[in-house]
Amino acid sequence: MTGLDLDTARKVLDSQPFSRLLGARITAFGDGEAVLEVDVREELRQQNGYLHGGVLAYAADNSITFAAGTTLGPAVLTGGFSVQYVRPATGRTLLARAAVVHTGRRQAVVRCDLLTVGEDGAETLCAVAQGTVLSAGTS
Amino acid sequence: MTGLDLDTARKVLDSQPFSRLLGARITAFGDGEAVLEVDVREELRQQNGYLHGGVLAYAADNSITFAAGTTLGPAVLTGGFSVQYVRPATGRTLLARAAVVHTGRRQAVVRCDLLTVGEDGAETLCAVAQGTVLSAGTS
Amino acid sequence: MTGLDLDTARKVLDSQPFSRLLGARITAFGDGEAVLEVDVREELRQQNGYLHGGVLAYAADNSITFAAGTTLGPAVLTGGFSVQYVRPATGRTLLARAAVVHTGRRQAVVRCDLLTVGEDGAETLCAVAQGTVLSAGTS
Amino acid sequence: MTGLDLDTARKVLDSQPFSRLLGARITAFGDGEAVLEVDVREELRQQNGYLHGGVLAYAADNSITFAAGTTLGPAVLTGGFSVQYVRPATGRTLLARAAVVHTGRRQAVVRCDLLTVGEDGAETLCAVAQGTVLSAGTS
Repeated sequence: MTGLDLDTARKVLDSQPFSRLLGARITAFGDGEAVLEVDVREELRQQNGYLHGGVLAYAADNSITFAAGTTLGPAVLTGGFSVQYVRPATGRTLLARAAVVHTGRRQAVVRCDLLTVGEDGAETLCAVAQGTVLSAGTS
Repeated sequence: MTGLDLDTARKVLDSQPFSRLLGARITAFGDGEAVLEVDVREELRQQNGYLHGGVLAYAADNSITFAAGTTLGPAVLTGGFSVQYVRPATGRTLLARAAVVHTGRRQAVVRCDLLTVGEDGAETLCAVAQGTVLSAGTS
Repeated sequence: MTGLDLDTARKVLDSQPFSRLLGARITAFGDGEAVLEVDVREELRQQNGYLHGGVLAYAADNSITFAAGTTLGPAVLTGGFSVQYVRPATGRTLLARAAVVHTGRRQAVVRCDLLTVGEDGAETLCAVAQGTVLSAGTS
Repeated sequence: MTGLDLDTARKVLDSQPFSRLLGARITAFGDGEAVLEVDVREELRQQNGYLHGGVLAYAADNSITFAAGTTLGPAVLTGGFSVQYVRPATGRTLLARAAVVHTGRRQAVVRCDLLTVGEDGAETLCAVAQGTVLSAGTS
């Protein structure tokens, strides 16, 4: 019981200037899970027109942290993560779906799927990530 | 011999809209190494005033890719990377120093140090990363 | 269609002296998935009586490689993997369940759950991994 | 100041049945660094005669943990690591050289080079790793 809900998570996300710069929104938060969305726009691309890997890495990092916040509470520090890209990312919206696979008192381990949603609503997996988040409360 | 130099690398970076949004510049490129810099500004922060982890992840991803480009040539695909954060990032400028540890015909493995430079010029390590970049030319 | 089946996979595993040293067996192989099992015995422990992390890392590495073999064929090279331990491993048998999340012509990305089975048959998650396997055939 | 020295580290390694099974020895320990060695023998190979990736993963895991022990003390838990293989491992002896890149009160981040030493004494890089070790004392 962390006392956090989707409204609180939205306020935290909105208090991150970098998340506002990217236009990220959080659409699910609770029970070990968090979903972050970023609408694809020109400014987020790389030189070949695909979504820049750095945007996917941002979305992995942040969705992993939020998912861990549902079990560890608001005071968390992301320890790190690993991301593997599986195909170039195109589409209308990037979705980062993160889910805690194990949580203890001190840390949570979280997996994340990064998908894009096309104009037709079809989802395509673009990258997978897994990371570790530490509770800052016990530091 | 990839035929790439710092000027070419700057043009590639400048052709990435997301790198322009972040204000990234490349200050070294060659012989298995690349250095990317991002000046810290309000828009790149998270809610506690530190540089957002997603900015560090972007800088890791992109500097690793550029370093691999010095050995694999311009047609590369980043396979993925792992990043571990070691302390909250503050300072004036973020530096991502990437160096190839091994390159073959098909892929390069690259390590990256992420540091911030303070107002006094002192460098502080904030994160370390390691990743894999594939040559797209042989696919 | 790789022309591989569980019998062939068992022969490959049996031709790995290190897998015989550890007593590994493969119990499922096909359609992007592989399951590797190792019975826990004294020789596989660390100093506190838990299964050594190196045994889990071996099982992650090898099950990821076999799972990729179901889609890429027998000539594969494991590029690397990331493993996060979530709790000390005890029990009767270690299970490594690997599943391909994406496969292309040149590489597969694979996730793996590492669980132990207790005396009562209950499964406990001990670690999670994700890795990349390259097709050696196109090199 | 952890009160640990090379003799103590050797005793800890010798109290790990799995490290004895593999024939590992520790040849350096202190000041954020640890070196683990494993002589290559038939039992440690995979099907093509190379050292099994699981042996390299074991050596990465264990040398990272020992290196962290020089700064965090004896009560540590390895959180996880990422390993990238750069070439098939052959030679006489495997060397895992681990060095702490940052240590705090709660965790250390460690990098590791995995090399083989040939009959002629030449060293060849086979894999690189980076991992995180938690202090168990504050849990």
